[in-house]
Order: sequence, then C-alpha cells, then structure tokens
Amino acid sequence: MADDCIFCKIRDGEIPSEKLHSDDDCFVIRDINPIAPTHLLVIPNQHFAELSELGPEPNPAFAGMFSAARAMAEQEGVAESGYRLIINQGSDGGQEVMHLHMHLIGGRPLRGLGLR
Amino acid sequence: MADDCIFCKIRDGEIPSEKLHSDDDCFVIRDINPIAPTHLLVIPNQHFAELSELGPEPNPAFAGMFSAARAMAEQEGVAESGYRLIINQGSDGGQEVMHLHMHLIGGRPLRGLGLR
Repeated sequence: MADDCIFCKIRDGEIPSEKLHSDDDCFVIRDINPIAPTHLLVIPNQHFAELSELGPEPNPAFAGMFSAARAMAEQEGVAESGYRLIINQGSDGGQEVMHLHMHLIGGRPLRGLGLR
Repeated sequence: MADDCIFCKIRDGEIPSEKLHSDDDCFVIRDINPIAPTHLLVIPNQHFAELSELGPEPNPAFAGMFSAARAMAEQEGVAESGYRLIINQGSDGGQEVMHLHMHLIGGRPLRGLGLR
C-alpha cells in the first residue's frame, strides 16, 4: 500500500467507510461528494495511481471491477435506466485521488462527456 | 454480430474505418465527432450493448480493453498529461451506439463528470 493513500486506508479498515461490496479484485464505496442519486467508486485493491504504472499485460482486476459495477448497478436500481462509468487519469483527466478508481454515476440523465 | 450494429460492421471491415489498434479482445477507432484533441473509442470485439447482457463472471475482454487504452494513451501522447475513460450505459448514461464502447478523451483539461 501507499502510506498516505486514503483508498488504501479505507481498504484496510484504517479509515472507517461503508463498503457496499468487496472481493479479491476490488471494493465499492459511495462518493463523499455525490453528483447524482447514485455515485459509487469501484476501487481496485491493488494500489496504482494510473494505468501507466501497470505493465502492458492485461490486468484481470479490471474484469472483476466491471463485474462489481454490473452488480452494483443492479443493486442501486440503475441497470435499466442507465449509468456512466468514468476513470479519470492524471491532471487533464481531473483525477483527485491518486489510486485508480472508477466512478459509477446514475439515477438521473447524464449529458456531455465532462467538458466545460 | 448484430445485423444493424455499426461497430460490428467496422470490426468486420464492412464499413471502412481506420483501426488504430486491433487484438483478440478489442479494436480502437477515432470518434467521428471528437470533443477533444484525442477522442478514441475502445470497442470490444464481442457484441453486447450493456454490461447487464453479460453474466456475472468477470469478462477478460475488459482487461484487454484497458491494456489497449494504456497503449493508445502513450501513442497519442496523453499518458503523462492525463485523460478520461468513459463508458455510457443506456438512456441515462447517454449511450448512443448500442455496442459497448469506452471513450478515451484527452489533450485538454477535462472538468466535471458530464452533468449539465
């Protein structure tokens, strides 16, 4: 783990946070600043800030993250109505926590792709 | 394949389109309506509209899609500056083509998460 990483601390229970899901690949929490009725974070257990820190080989954790996202969308009742999955990478991407994470946002119509 | 799916037709070469990358899991093309200097689509070869059409088991194609995204970000010169990966699911997500695809957007600062 990275010593100062808030997501590693949540993963390890050092910072209390309700985990909606947890498995060998990832865990899921609610975003503390939700922008829609459903706003979850799907977070790989493995600490890495960006994809560029991984090797070129496919990382099976991503397949697990999508299984978790699919299950969470069902659980939140947004699988039918639709939702958006977003991974922000680095400065231009607007990444705020330097441990890769995927936003799952739904419960209201989303437009555009995040450009102002 | 789905008979009327534009991405299946591009995959199969029935509609001409420059593939920037192609492997056993996915292929990559440029978005025809780019919203940033880099705007690519990472598309799984397997036809499915939404995650809900897949079983609950992890689908290894997603791991391959992230490897492709990582390589494309390097090739486009946005790996350092940052970028955003987006999958729109269904109506509320703003999905426009009913074959799952991941946007890779970079080359300028992105803000917000696509809400208006």
